[in-house]
Amino acid sequence: MKELHEDRYFDSDPVIRRHARALYDETRVLPIISPHGHVDPAILAKNDAFADPTSLIITPDHYILRMLYSRGVSLESLGIAPIDGTAPAAELDPRKIWQTFADNWHLFRATPTRAWLEYELHEVFGVQRELDSASAQHVYDAIAERLKSPEFRPRALFKRFKIEVLATTDGPSDTLEHHRALGAAELGGRVIPTFRPDALFRIASPGWLAELKRFAGIAGGTISSCGELVGAVARRREEFKTMGATATDHGVVAPRTARLDDSEADRIFDKALRCSATEEDEALFEAHLLMEMARLSVDDGLVMQLHVGALRNHNEVVYRRVGPDRGGDIPVATEFTRNLRPLLNAYGNDPRFQLIVFTLDESTYSRELAPLAGHYPALLLGAPWWFHDSIEGMMRFRQQTTETAGMENTAGFTDDTRAFCSIPARHDLARRVDANYLGGLVARHVIDMSDAREMARAMAYDLAKRAYRLT
Amino acid sequence: MKELHEDRYFDSDPVIRRHARALYDETRVLPIISPHGHVDPAILAKNDAFADPTSLIITPDHYILRMLYSRGVSLESLGIAPIDGTAPAAELDPRKIWQTFADNWHLFRATPTRAWLEYELHEVFGVQRELDSASAQHVYDAIAERLKSPEFRPRALFKRFKIEVLATTDGPSDTLEHHRALGAAELGGRVIPTFRPDALFRIASPGWLAELKRFAGIAGGTISSCGELVGAVARRREEFKTMGATATDHGVVAPRTARLDDSEADRIFDKALRCSATEEDEALFEAHLLMEMARLSVDDGLVMQLHVGALRNHNEVVYRRVGPDRGGDIPVATEFTRNLRPLLNAYGNDPRFQLIVFTLDESTYSRELAPLAGHYPALLLGAPWWFHDSIEGMMRFRQQTTETAGMENTAGFTDDTRAFCSIPARHDLARRVDANYLGGLVARHVIDMSDAREMARAMAYDLAKRAYRLT
Amino acid sequence: MKELHEDRYFDSDPVIRRHARALYDETRVLPIISPHGHVDPAILAKNDAFADPTSLIITPDHYILRMLYSRGVSLESLGIAPIDGTAPAAELDPRKIWQTFADNWHLFRATPTRAWLEYELHEVFGVQRELDSASAQHVYDAIAERLKSPEFRPRALFKRFKIEVLATTDGPSDTLEHHRALGAAELGGRVIPTFRPDALFRIASPGWLAELKRFAGIAGGTISSCGELVGAVARRREEFKTMGATATDHGVVAPRTARLDDSEADRIFDKALRCSATEEDEALFEAHLLMEMARLSVDDGLVMQLHVGALRNHNEVVYRRVGPDRGGDIPVATEFTRNLRPLLNAYGNDPRFQLIVFTLDESTYSRELAPLAGHYPALLLGAPWWFHDSIEGMMRFRQQTTETAGMENTAGFTDDTRAFCSIPARHDLARRVDANYLGGLVARHVIDMSDAREMARAMAYDLAKRAYRLT
Repeated sequence: MKELHEDRYFDSDPVIRRHARALYDETRVLPIISPHGHVDPAILAKNDAFADPTSLIITPDHYILRMLYSRGVSLESLGIAPIDGTAPAAELDPRKIWQTFADNWHLFRATPTRAWLEYELHEVFGVQRELDSASAQHVYDAIAERLKSPEFRPRALFKRFKIEVLATTDGPSDTLEHHRALGAAELGGRVIPTFRPDALFRIASPGWLAELKRFAGIAGGTISSCGELVGAVARRREEFKTMGATATDHGVVAPRTARLDDSEADRIFDKALRCSATEEDEALFEAHLLMEMARLSVDDGLVMQLHVGALRNHNEVVYRRVGPDRGGDIPVATEFTRNLRPLLNAYGNDPRFQLIVFTLDESTYSRELAPLAGHYPALLLGAPWWFHDSIEGMMRFRQQTTETAGMENTAGFTDDTRAFCSIPARHDLARRVDANYLGGLVARHVIDMSDAREMARAMAYDLAKRAYRLT
Repeated sequence: MKELHEDRYFDSDPVIRRHARALYDETRVLPIISPHGHVDPAILAKNDAFADPTSLIITPDHYILRMLYSRGVSLESLGIAPIDGTAPAAELDPRKIWQTFADNWHLFRATPTRAWLEYELHEVFGVQRELDSASAQHVYDAIAERLKSPEFRPRALFKRFKIEVLATTDGPSDTLEHHRALGAAELGGRVIPTFRPDALFRIASPGWLAELKRFAGIAGGTISSCGELVGAVARRREEFKTMGATATDHGVVAPRTARLDDSEADRIFDKALRCSATEEDEALFEAHLLMEMARLSVDDGLVMQLHVGALRNHNEVVYRRVGPDRGGDIPVATEFTRNLRPLLNAYGNDPRFQLIVFTLDESTYSRELAPLAGHYPALLLGAPWWFHDSIEGMMRFRQQTTETAGMENTAGFTDDTRAFCSIPARHDLARRVDANYLGGLVARHVIDMSDAREMARAMAYDLAKRAYRLT
Repeated sequence: MKELHEDRYFDSDPVIRRHARALYDETRVLPIISPHGHVDPAILAKNDAFADPTSLIITPDHYILRMLYSRGVSLESLGIAPIDGTAPAAELDPRKIWQTFADNWHLFRATPTRAWLEYELHEVFGVQRELDSASAQHVYDAIAERLKSPEFRPRALFKRFKIEVLATTDGPSDTLEHHRALGAAELGGRVIPTFRPDALFRIASPGWLAELKRFAGIAGGTISSCGELVGAVARRREEFKTMGATATDHGVVAPRTARLDDSEADRIFDKALRCSATEEDEALFEAHLLMEMARLSVDDGLVMQLHVGALRNHNEVVYRRVGPDRGGDIPVATEFTRNLRPLLNAYGNDPRFQLIVFTLDESTYSRELAPLAGHYPALLLGAPWWFHDSIEGMMRFRQQTTETAGMENTAGFTDDTRAFCSIPARHDLARRVDANYLGGLVARHVIDMSDAREMARAMAYDLAKRAYRLT
């Protein structure tokens, strides 16, 4: 079988490797803090057995879908059903989809997807053979067999993964019923929601009115002004808090922030109610609502996350045919210094406020984000995100932020995944890369081993708990 | 002499070096695929002996000219004649120019120019002494002596270099006479043209009308509308195809793409015919023509190349005095995500279309290009280009694109050179850097040696053939 | 005590380390050329003993202030007095401030601040214990004791540091009295001024009229037009020259350059005199004045420095409370190719002109600055600046500029510091990083040791002297 090398991802230099190994030996056994991700809480609330290897591993993973698609494999052949109902229909046989995946396994060489899946196959499912065209059905059978056993039910895995906290990401109108159910469950850890109201703020989007109506329903009242919207959001944030939430999350293309006066905010809101809000109205409204969210965070203590720079559904052909989250989101260049200035000037010096920023534009690490985080008390740097959550990507993040922001202005690792079974793989990779980074610093006598030990533990565990107020 | 170390450019870490060496030993013997470059086909068609070392190596090389110029060496003293005929006149003695070059050899330390030239002097011309002020004339003599012999005629070198395919870059009005002559030649490989119609699209440029007239002449017919222009281009593309062309190439400052409706396109074309097209007209026209070129590529199968981001003739003083291509082109920041969206939405999902994109803005590697190539079936990443075709530059390209796009969404190495005798040097350097990159991955157990062997071969040979449809 | 490892900051690979060590052994003993910095010349002119460790090391260092502030330590507790006189008042006890600093020493792990301070404590002040909460008062005492002795007076340290040239940065209305006093002093080296007239060009700033009046006073005459301003600046530059100045310096957010015609320049100047200049007026005026400064440099031979890209006083709350230079300046993305074009076209080919550019946007290294410096005779690249004057930052600078610009188009190291006692620490770190960079090139056989020796010496000493015309 594909034996995973115990020193994988460490530099081959023997001094660095020895230090990295020693550091990793101390962090690998720590519990998992997963303060931001997209696991469906229903999985854990229902605790049903996972259906099959394909629907567990391939179909929901947009990293896998996009790579196969980029090399000419149709999404339909991977089981993605066209939402417009046109031909070709989606492949229904999970074994055929698995075979297609295995036949193209080589495409993932040197990608984090491969590193994660090798861990998942070997360490989580105990698969004995390396994946390739010949072994595909054997590997499928091996995983399918495991999935039938009680030890591979979601809650059993939750315990085995040693998850101390798992935060999900939830819409503003979510009933939180699964979180309520999980509150009583014996998991050995917490599953908490995160308040992500983006859909409420996208007033130029076709679905906005329906979203607003849904939200007004759950928030209990009519919403006829921007002020009423913010008031209802404030109340819903409190409800999320009672279910354990410690954070909100906000996804924007550009991190524009600006306070509108009330009459201007209401004027735009009225336009939106009449379905005539423009793109610029939406941008202004979002900029204003980010200010409001920061203000509410000062009051209610919820940590504010910003995920910035993804242009969603770049490929409209794919979007129209199979919907969002199939791998067609593409980053754009991002400006933080000027865009965040109003928000940071208003709230960035307040000790009650905590803001964690994630970027898809690595050129901002050393130029804007590390200097901002190295000055403002409220600001922390989120982990390398999405395309940059990779061996080289995590190394660049450390190399380009630590010298200016210091390690303690970073917020720990976030796996940000929908793929529940990949969580330990992602944390393991991050812990290895951080151990290797620190091992390199020790080898060059930038820090000593006692520094490195504390830093390694912080990067793997303590920082995330502190940043997300999970203590 | 300057002995070239057999393990040059490999990391000194013994594990990485051992792997790199093993991989390079397999790729160094592969034939050369040169799918994009600027060699003058007349050199091979005529097969005359090269005149002298200076006109072969120094005068046409804008990398050399710009570096010497930047340190105070006048272009005239390097034999570049002022096109305005003013004093000082150009140095005519190739030995004096060669001496000036040798006296300043130290300026090229740690640059790719020096790595290429060391290979060329030692491996191609068998020079026995290291170049410096004292040895300059001796080295000159040694090369001059070689150039007289039949073994150093262009076609003999073509065979010795093991060139399987050499693609030139040719204007839309080129007669292709040299390619025609070479079609019958016994070269041990192909010399094929590439259709590069930029001059036809620059409707605000002073020379455009003359270019259009020349093109109309060779395309056989009058051209009085945008539609007629596109029709004539389509026919010329077919002629290029019959001469072996498999690709087109397009150079733009910004990769804007947008379809105009016919009346708008014709309105702008009319303005151009009246010599009143503005810069913005030209930008719109180019954006439209790129869409049209992609549409034609879907039909005729020619691979579309985009070279983006060079602001030509930045130094107008130098441009007016000695003309273009003397080293005065400077990159600008580039946006791909939004600019390419119309083109990729229209054609990027079509299996008949292949687009290869080259950038001079490395910040786009991980932010825009790798995510785009890792999603769209049509898009491949071109090799690190121009300023970035260097040891560190090629390493950055691999480190910043592979984890997201995968190696198979890259298009292999392109030497992009006018300097025929430097071709093997450039491919050798690229193969060494790629072997070292892969050796590093093996040393860290990211991939194993069987993966690395296939990847090394692909990067050196297979990918270019596949990307440029050269099979 | 914290023993500083003699091979610190060198790669652990034994081949690289051996080469790096050999190169560093040759450069560590060279005198210090400090051609750009912010040391107060009064310190050396008066030669008083430094008051205490806290006011020497902590209070004036915005790197230290911002990092502590970013982790929740108030500026008042660090002795920074609110300029508005409100509570809380600043801590006055230097021992308490020192203790706070020591308690938070861990925040600086892996930052250059820590590397510099470890050198300063150990090598300059001979401190015997590692800094931490427990040792804080002991370390304070040890430094305080040293500061009392004649060997630790500023001029004695100047000699001990082997400073050959120290350039300060001085306003256009500075009397230069301290430089005059130092002209006669026996220092074993020179202290020279640098002409930095930014305040005169910021015509939309509230303090501009006062600045202009002050300048007119010292320049001897009234200034009622742009032409008169430039004339007075030209005369003041001459006065700076007679005091030893070899350079000017200019700080701008964007490096816009453009020549206005005289009437337009005077129209804007008139507006400024009436206190009605807009931000855009100021930008145009600055762009024009940069052209004028380049023109004057051609005549008077003063080297022109540009420090680009810092958005000053980003945090207005901190700025209003404690004033500028407390760590609240944040970089912005910068464009050089188009912005510098007018200036480089007008003067960049002139052998009498020398321009040194510093950036805070690392994405411009390989994209814009190295190509520009690798072409224009007048342009040199300044050392990695501010946030990027760090181990990783200096390595990225070399890796991203050398292959295109060559080492000889860089301007040597500038410590750019206010902290006189940190000067040797900063040069030592730079020499170590450069030695390590070169050692890596030798280990990979990119250059040989004789090349590397010359390059190491140039990077540590010769280039700065040549670039700043200090011979």
